[in-house]
Amino acid sequence: MNMMAYEYDGDMIVVDCGIMFPDAELLGVDIVVPDFTYVRQNRERLRAIILTHAHEDHIGGLPYLLDEVDAPVYGSPFTLALARAKLEEHGLADSTRLVEMQPSQPFNVGAFQVEFIHLTHSTIESGALALTTPLGTVIHSGDFKFDPTPPDQRVSDLHTLADYGRRGVLALFSDSTNIERPGLTPSERAVRGRLSDIISEAPGRVLISCFATSLHRLQIVAELALEHGRRLCFVGRSMFQNSEIAMRLGKLRIPEGLLIPPQDIKKLPRNKVALVLTGSQGEPMAALSRVAVDNHRWVSVEPGDEVVISARVIPGNEKPIFRMIDHFYRRGARVYYQDGSQPPIHVSGHGSAEELKLMLNLVRPKYFIPIHGEYRQLYRHLELAKELAAVSEEGFLIESGDVLEFDEQGARRAGRVPVGRVCIDVGTFDEVEEIILKERRHISADGIVIPILAINEHTGQLEIQPEIVSRGFVPLEEAPDLVESAREVILKTIEKSNLEEVGDWGVIKEKIRTGLRKHFNEQTGKRPMILPVVLEV
Amino acid sequence: MNMMAYEYDGDMIVVDCGIMFPDAELLGVDIVVPDFTYVRQNRERLRAIILTHAHEDHIGGLPYLLDEVDAPVYGSPFTLALARAKLEEHGLADSTRLVEMQPSQPFNVGAFQVEFIHLTHSTIESGALALTTPLGTVIHSGDFKFDPTPPDQRVSDLHTLADYGRRGVLALFSDSTNIERPGLTPSERAVRGRLSDIISEAPGRVLISCFATSLHRLQIVAELALEHGRRLCFVGRSMFQNSEIAMRLGKLRIPEGLLIPPQDIKKLPRNKVALVLTGSQGEPMAALSRVAVDNHRWVSVEPGDEVVISARVIPGNEKPIFRMIDHFYRRGARVYYQDGSQPPIHVSGHGSAEELKLMLNLVRPKYFIPIHGEYRQLYRHLELAKELAAVSEEGFLIESGDVLEFDEQGARRAGRVPVGRVCIDVGTFDEVEEIILKERRHISADGIVIPILAINEHTGQLEIQPEIVSRGFVPLEEAPDLVESAREVILKTIEKSNLEEVGDWGVIKEKIRTGLRKHFNEQTGKRPMILPVVLEV
Repeated sequence: MNMMAYEYDGDMIVVDCGIMFPDAELLGVDIVVPDFTYVRQNRERLRAIILTHAHEDHIGGLPYLLDEVDAPVYGSPFTLALARAKLEEHGLADSTRLVEMQPSQPFNVGAFQVEFIHLTHSTIESGALALTTPLGTVIHSGDFKFDPTPPDQRVSDLHTLADYGRRGVLALFSDSTNIERPGLTPSERAVRGRLSDIISEAPGRVLISCFATSLHRLQIVAELALEHGRRLCFVGRSMFQNSEIAMRLGKLRIPEGLLIPPQDIKKLPRNKVALVLTGSQGEPMAALSRVAVDNHRWVSVEPGDEVVISARVIPGNEKPIFRMIDHFYRRGARVYYQDGSQPPIHVSGHGSAEELKLMLNLVRPKYFIPIHGEYRQLYRHLELAKELAAVSEEGFLIESGDVLEFDEQGARRAGRVPVGRVCIDVGTFDEVEEIILKERRHISADGIVIPILAINEHTGQLEIQPEIVSRGFVPLEEAPDLVESAREVILKTIEKSNLEEVGDWGVIKEKIRTGLRKHFNEQTGKRPMILPVVLEV
Repeated sequence: MNMMAYEYDGDMIVVDCGIMFPDAELLGVDIVVPDFTYVRQNRERLRAIILTHAHEDHIGGLPYLLDEVDAPVYGSPFTLALARAKLEEHGLADSTRLVEMQPSQPFNVGAFQVEFIHLTHSTIESGALALTTPLGTVIHSGDFKFDPTPPDQRVSDLHTLADYGRRGVLALFSDSTNIERPGLTPSERAVRGRLSDIISEAPGRVLISCFATSLHRLQIVAELALEHGRRLCFVGRSMFQNSEIAMRLGKLRIPEGLLIPPQDIKKLPRNKVALVLTGSQGEPMAALSRVAVDNHRWVSVEPGDEVVISARVIPGNEKPIFRMIDHFYRRGARVYYQDGSQPPIHVSGHGSAEELKLMLNLVRPKYFIPIHGEYRQLYRHLELAKELAAVSEEGFLIESGDVLEFDEQGARRAGRVPVGRVCIDVGTFDEVEEIILKERRHISADGIVIPILAINEHTGQLEIQPEIVSRGFVPLEEAPDLVESAREVILKTIEKSNLEEVGDWGVIKEKIRTGLRKHFNEQTGKRPMILPVVLEV
């Protein structure tokens, strides 16, 4: 979850505010946002939230942050348009001031002068930030690659980076995502040839799935559809919404009459239509997955159709993606996905090792701090920097929560602030607490057993035999001996307790829990959650 | 889970019997074995279980199968030695007849003549099976690659495959694992150069992790340790056990005095020892993971040590593996893993597309059936075969459970037999039933709520206010309003029910469940499992 606070004197700027999609360990959690405690506690110093680009892992947490603090949000027109759509869903659009920023048009926020420097990435209007204070300039790279031939011909602003480098940069904070890849990341244009071959030779429908923010990809498909006499259709909520926004802003140029609505797909011959769909990660409710199991209102596939997954397989999503691919093969469709074949069906939006070197050599900062990556990637990025002569002073490997302090004397670590993740259930936008997750994890491993005791409030005696119910544990109806022996454990526990203990439900419950835990472990090898309930009747 | 039954007249042979390690969807399940129903129902025809090689996904299910049926087990000496160790753990070693088979020494099992054909793979003594009946010969490839330079110099027996091909083969069943990779898989020898560089330049300890069955890898490390003046130590239970077995069988040649026990590691200078450890997949209890968090009895790392993960990242294991790598980096160790850099730190044991073509061209069967792979891989293997002139009759894409029937007239699909997966809890070796998993999945998403009613058995009236406990749901102690309103739902449900309904606990429980489900969904957006309990006091 990308989020960074820069401070000078009494002014704080937050750069980006992303979300993460949870892994399987986070049972029942829909999204994960950063812990905003530090920003909340220092909200009176917060002057701006600045967004580097429109990806979910950089803007998705914005509504949750703005629920707790108040600050103007800066971003490019496209980024702000997508952010606005999010804020509208949360009812925050009216109460938030959105301020457009343009590359090479510096502006002031508190003590900071901010310049947005255009860099290429897999989405449009992406860039770095130059944050200048009396101490010097900090460059925050955002996500970038140095694409020499972006489809919109807007190459990275190497000149401005070079200018800053020439004048002297205090610190560079640079993206480490692809540090492990040697060489250069291929241009966004590289997928054009492959997509063109597929579309030109396709006997039936062509379904192309990519991220809805991959504007370059959308533009390429639109151009190829036109070239090959196919109508174009965007399918899926975010694909429809983002393409609408991009067209409105003039960032996606689609000739009059090319676009059709999904309900018209069936009216056209199969070889006269190209679709762009959401769902490249096999998300079960997204368009592509629904088409794969023939459960989409407007779209279906038949033998002879082609399905193109023009996105990377995000680690952790292999199973749903390949399950979806298998469904398409079973329906006779031909599926293209990132299998290492060349030319590529997808290219990364992040620069590889040689591009990271170029960034370092252009900016040549005094201090270098790798960001955006796991520990091993930050470590390797720092090692890479040591091979160059670019960093004149020092590199720092800092992790989430670490504070780095700069002054006239230099730079140094300066303690930590609270950070972490907050799990959100999107049904309610509520936080799912860690204790709840722990309970779910415990129950999900070996189930739950609930022994219920009805104790007479006057005599302190059991009114009836203890009742035992369970779920996710061995089926108790099939194990009467186990139920009987568990009852005996409960009765013995009560027998052996003195009156004072029986009177204290907390004690008796704990003793029953301990006794049953041991008993079930011996009898079944399992460690279910045990939740004794005492009813005073 | 690799397992295949071949039948002719009244004789059945089962080839391999593997296990799978479960994904996160299988809560609390330790391993998955095949459903043996068909073999069990036809056990009187079962003549032999034949193992193609010693990998877990080919032999791991053997003890579970032999728990249900009785048959001799055929395998190479090394494969049988590993199988025997498994059977001993399950108390089945004495009751099972293990029969050694050697390459190029055909033997008869019922109506079948069986020949084991040596092929190269990532473990030793791996091979294909030629199963000959009066109808012709079927070749079952097992897992293979055509490694021209295996470390033990035992190349694949191309000549025997060619002989069968010349005489005519009825059907080829061939491994599809690496169909998506173009070209040739590098030789096992390819990792030697990289490992040699690492070991020769290492200032401290070298820790190398690979699968304990990767005998070629073990042999290479032993040779390099000797070359570079380091003592060798195997760490981890299966690494120790497999190396012992292999040395005893003369399959792992380690010079006298090279090997040390783990407790002696600390006595040697750090640059005088090379370790081979289990745990390449980040398994939390395996040696490497324990070293990573400094929780291993005999081994620790320091800055200057080198950690080599000489294995592929099995999809689904990315998170634990990379978490482990991060831990090593934090301790200052240098970590080498499969990051695409050349020369490789690991090579696959499965042949790539050109090797699969060579297999097809050598065997040139009448019928071709791709095996070992997901649907898309089988599909692509079949497509590959269509590009060649190797298959004279037909290819079949069959999935688990499909029956393929051969006779003088040809080959055809012939229905299905029951197949599936059986989930095992290794604590007890018990099967985890699907209903239990469903319950765990339900609870793990939104938690569980247990409303408890104490009803007077004489009056049919509630004795006390309904009690409500929950786990994994919203913390009820912090939501008194929710508890109160839920109580009201319960009371209203009982009020509105007639006497007959209240008398029938099944009905009243279902009505309460329905009422509370609706109530909680409206109030919290969550759908916990609701488990009403009625106590008659």
